[in-house]
Amino acid sequence: MPRPETPTVTSAIKQLILDRHLRPGDPMPTENELVDLLGVSRSSVREAVRTLVALDILEVRHGHGTFVGGVSLRPLVEALVFRGVMSPGDDYRTVREVVEMRTSLDLAMAETVVERLAGRDAPELRELTRTMVAAAARGESFAEADCAFHVGLAALQDNQLFGQMVGALWEIHSTITPKLGLPTTRDIEDTAKAHVTLLERAVAGDLDGYRAAVVGHYAPLMRVLDKANPAVPAEEAIA
Amino acid sequence: MPRPETPTVTSAIKQLILDRHLRPGDPMPTENELVDLLGVSRSSVREAVRTLVALDILEVRHGHGTFVGGVSLRPLVEALVFRGVMSPGDDYRTVREVVEMRTSLDLAMAETVVERLAGRDAPELRELTRTMVAAAARGESFAEADCAFHVGLAALQDNQLFGQMVGALWEIHSTITPKLGLPTTRDIEDTAKAHVTLLERAVAGDLDGYRAAVVGHYAPLMRVLDKANPAVPAEEAIA
Repeated sequence: MPRPETPTVTSAIKQLILDRHLRPGDPMPTENELVDLLGVSRSSVREAVRTLVALDILEVRHGHGTFVGGVSLRPLVEALVFRGVMSPGDDYRTVREVVEMRTSLDLAMAETVVERLAGRDAPELRELTRTMVAAAARGESFAEADCAFHVGLAALQDNQLFGQMVGALWEIHSTITPKLGLPTTRDIEDTAKAHVTLLERAVAGDLDGYRAAVVGHYAPLMRVLDKANPAVPAEEAIA
Repeated sequence: MPRPETPTVTSAIKQLILDRHLRPGDPMPTENELVDLLGVSRSSVREAVRTLVALDILEVRHGHGTFVGGVSLRPLVEALVFRGVMSPGDDYRTVREVVEMRTSLDLAMAETVVERLAGRDAPELRELTRTMVAAAARGESFAEADCAFHVGLAALQDNQLFGQMVGALWEIHSTITPKLGLPTTRDIEDTAKAHVTLLERAVAGDLDGYRAAVVGHYAPLMRVLDKANPAVPAEEAIA
């Protein structure tokens, strides 16, 4: 099993990235070079690289070598999805927690979103709402357009952390919800329309209306959760 | 460098955890048993275990064996901390982004915090504010008590995700801020007092006062940031 000295090697590799001012996508030294540079065994280097790949700090492109990774939130998503899957009885709880966090972030971003979209045309966001409404009319879900819409709203912030967090939470959300049972046609249609309302209120410069639309936008999902697990009082999800 | 077949082995180990209904802290099969069970090489098992340790899905206790891990947000913290320190020129930006996110979460939790603390004694939180004030009077910082205070407030939510996120953001925050230069005695004292005010307003059941105290609590830090990097307009941090 992994040896205790490995954390030092991962730290040394991270420090090397910092010292050389490497950026995501930059090539790393070869395995041989790392062995020489760090003065550790080949197997220690391999273990450390494996750890850093798991954290998206390094990326191995087979046949091309090792590169600095995207340093994304992918590890968070993987761990949370696994946590959700690990305790199936807790799926509802995990989804409720994620929905609460998404609501909090959506509300925190509301002022900037309305400020930036008021009186604008927002053609990309509008096109995404059209895609959602059209899919709903065919009784189909529209995860991709939904995610793109929310990431698009987060991109209006001068804060990359919001976009990354919204994207990560959305991914967790969309991975777990299919296991909760099929939404009804009404749920799908209501969710599509809720996105139209969100955009309308933002473009109208109506901050209170936008905030209400944020909360309302999760109502169809809460209905699905309540049906799936009626024992949990609905208030808990809104508290 | 890590071999392409490893993802399958990590998936197989995750599936084994699910099939056996293992929970965080439960012992895993030994390395030999995993080699037999999964029909793969010892080195593949080792690489997969290393990956899953990095994701906090497994935990190696040296001398005791391998256990199911806490499946926490630790991988996120590691990746974000590293991203934060990776681009030294962006430290100010990263701290501002983290402070904005912390403010958003603090405000999202405000209603529950005030509801739960109104009229209560909250001896643990009060003790932490005493520790902070005493340290500040000696001109010392108080990262540990500060972190415990915020995680304590987050623990009042019926949502583990908030606590994990607050802890993660706090850790990033406290990793990066020392590189921004030393805070003045006044900044340290103001920060300590700001925590006393936060608790006072919550115990008084004063939601508006508590919200104002949340925003005010970051003011000394914003002063440090503005001094360290005066080129960035202060409004950007509040936007």
